[in-house]
Amino acid sequence: MPNANLKRISRASKKPSTKTPPIGVFDSGIGGLTVASAMRDLLPGENIFYIGDTARVPYGGKSQDTIERYSVEITGLLLAEDAKMIVVACNTASALAIPRLEEILRVPVVGVIEPGARAAVTATRNGHIGVIGTRATIYSRAYERAIHALDPDVRVTSQACPMLVPLIEEGWLDDAITDQIVRRYLEKLVRDGIDTLVLGCTHYPLLADAIAKFAGPEIRLVDSAKNCALAVQKLLAKEKLAAPKNHLGKLEIALTDKPDGFLRVAENALGLQAGDIQLRSVQGVAVS
Amino acid sequence: MPNANLKRISRASKKPSTKTPPIGVFDSGIGGLTVASAMRDLLPGENIFYIGDTARVPYGGKSQDTIERYSVEITGLLLAEDAKMIVVACNTASALAIPRLEEILRVPVVGVIEPGARAAVTATRNGHIGVIGTRATIYSRAYERAIHALDPDVRVTSQACPMLVPLIEEGWLDDAITDQIVRRYLEKLVRDGIDTLVLGCTHYPLLADAIAKFAGPEIRLVDSAKNCALAVQKLLAKEKLAAPKNHLGKLEIALTDKPDGFLRVAENALGLQAGDIQLRSVQGVAVS
Repeated sequence: MPNANLKRISRASKKPSTKTPPIGVFDSGIGGLTVASAMRDLLPGENIFYIGDTARVPYGGKSQDTIERYSVEITGLLLAEDAKMIVVACNTASALAIPRLEEILRVPVVGVIEPGARAAVTATRNGHIGVIGTRATIYSRAYERAIHALDPDVRVTSQACPMLVPLIEEGWLDDAITDQIVRRYLEKLVRDGIDTLVLGCTHYPLLADAIAKFAGPEIRLVDSAKNCALAVQKLLAKEKLAAPKNHLGKLEIALTDKPDGFLRVAENALGLQAGDIQLRSVQGVAVS
Repeated sequence: MPNANLKRISRASKKPSTKTPPIGVFDSGIGGLTVASAMRDLLPGENIFYIGDTARVPYGGKSQDTIERYSVEITGLLLAEDAKMIVVACNTASALAIPRLEEILRVPVVGVIEPGARAAVTATRNGHIGVIGTRATIYSRAYERAIHALDPDVRVTSQACPMLVPLIEEGWLDDAITDQIVRRYLEKLVRDGIDTLVLGCTHYPLLADAIAKFAGPEIRLVDSAKNCALAVQKLLAKEKLAAPKNHLGKLEIALTDKPDGFLRVAENALGLQAGDIQLRSVQGVAVS
C-alpha cells in the first residue's frame, strides 16, 4: 500500500505545468485556512492551492499510522495540482506525518510546528513555554522536541484541549461558556508561570481574544499561522521558488467532502475570498 | 465505485459459517457501544460483532454521500464476519444510509431512528416531542419523518447539539460546564413545551443524568439504545434468526483505528467486558 501511494505521487508530480505552480497547503479540515490567510497577507504574489480533508476531519484524535496515510494521500492530490512546495497547515499532521512526507517527496515540506517552536523560544523571557493543541499533537510531544532542539534549557508545559475545535466550529467565539472552558484548560499553565503560549492548532487563532482575556497581557501568544507563513517566505527565497515578480496570486480551495456552514464562518472571520469550492475524492470517499 | 462495494459485500457474505453467526453492529465510533450494551442485557444468548469506524469518526458533520459510502464499507466488514443482521447503532448513519443499505443487502437492517421514534410517539402525552442529535442527523429530518409516519399530528422540535459528543469524550459527564451547555441547547425545547425528548445520538445516554437534571421529571427521555435492542429482539423472532437456546453470547469489538482512552471510559460506564480490541482496515486506511 505505501508503494501505491508513492507511485501515484510520483506520477502526479510529473504532470506538465502550464501556469505558475501553486504552493500546496493542506489541513484535516477548514482550520488551516488561518495559515492560508496569513500566507495571502505576506505573499500576495503566490498561488495557493488549499485542500481540507473534511471527509475525514478531525485528525486530532487518530493514530499516527492513520494520520500519516491521510497526509500522504492529500499530498498526492496537491502534487496533481503541480504544487512546488507542501505546507502542512495542520498541527496534528505536522507533528506526526512530516518525517514520512520528507522521506517520499522531492518538493520542500513546511509544517507549523518548527516555526511556532522557533517563535516561542524567541518570545520567552523566563524560559517557560506553554503549548496547547489536540490530543494527538500534545501526546506526540512534537513541540517539546522542536523547542528543546532549539534550546534544551526551556521548560515546556503542555495541555491537550479537545473541546476547543468543536467550540470554534460551533461559532461560540465570544461566549461565557467558551471563557470557562478556556479557563479550565489554561489555569494550570498560567499558575505554573508560563510567559509564552503556543496556539498549537490552526483553529485556535479564531479564539485568540478569549485566550488573551484569560491569559492576560503578560503572556505572549504564539500564532502558528503567522510564523508558518514567515517560514514559507524564507524557504521560497532560499530554494528560488518564489512566483514571478508582479504575479497576482490567487487562492483555490478544495475539500474532500461537501462544505458546511463553518467554511463561510472561517472565510468571514479571516477575510478570505475563496470563490467556488472544489471537491476532490480520496480513497473510499466518493464526492459528487 | 458502488459496484466494487457491492461485489465485495456479496463475496464476503458467501463465506461459510462455522459458528453461531453474530449480529453485526456498527457506529462511526465508540458511542454505539451503548446499543451493544443494551443488546447484551436484553439478548445475552446472541453473539455481537461490533465495528467502530474510529479512523473516520465522527460521521455527524459529513455529507450524505460520504456517510452512505462509509456505512456500506463497514457493513462489508460485518458481512465478512458472517453477520446475520446489521444493526446501525449510529443515528447519523441510520438517518442517512439505511435506504442504501436496504437496497443492497439481503440480511435485515435495523437502525436506531425508527425504534426511537416509535417509543417517543408512545411516550408523549401532549403530542410535542423534542429531538436532539448531531448536525447531520437533525438536518436530515429523519426523526421528524419517522415520527410523522407513525402519527402525523405530533409536533416535533429539533435541535442539533454538536458540542455534546466532544463533552462526553472529554469525560465531563458530571460538570458545571456540561450543565450550561445542556441548558443552552435544551432551553428552547423546554420553553416550547415538549414532554418527551429523544436522545438522538448513541453517545447521549452517557449524559442522561445531566439532561434529566435540566429537563426535569416532567419530560420523558427516550434512549435510542434500549429501544433499538427491543427492535432487534422482535426482528430476531420474526425472521427466526435467534441464536440457539442456551447459547452463551459474546461481544467482539473491532475498530478501524487504534483505540484511545475513551474506549475504556465507555467500557467502564457501560459495564462491558470487551477483551482485546481487534483492528480492521478500511479503504485508504492501513491499521498496523
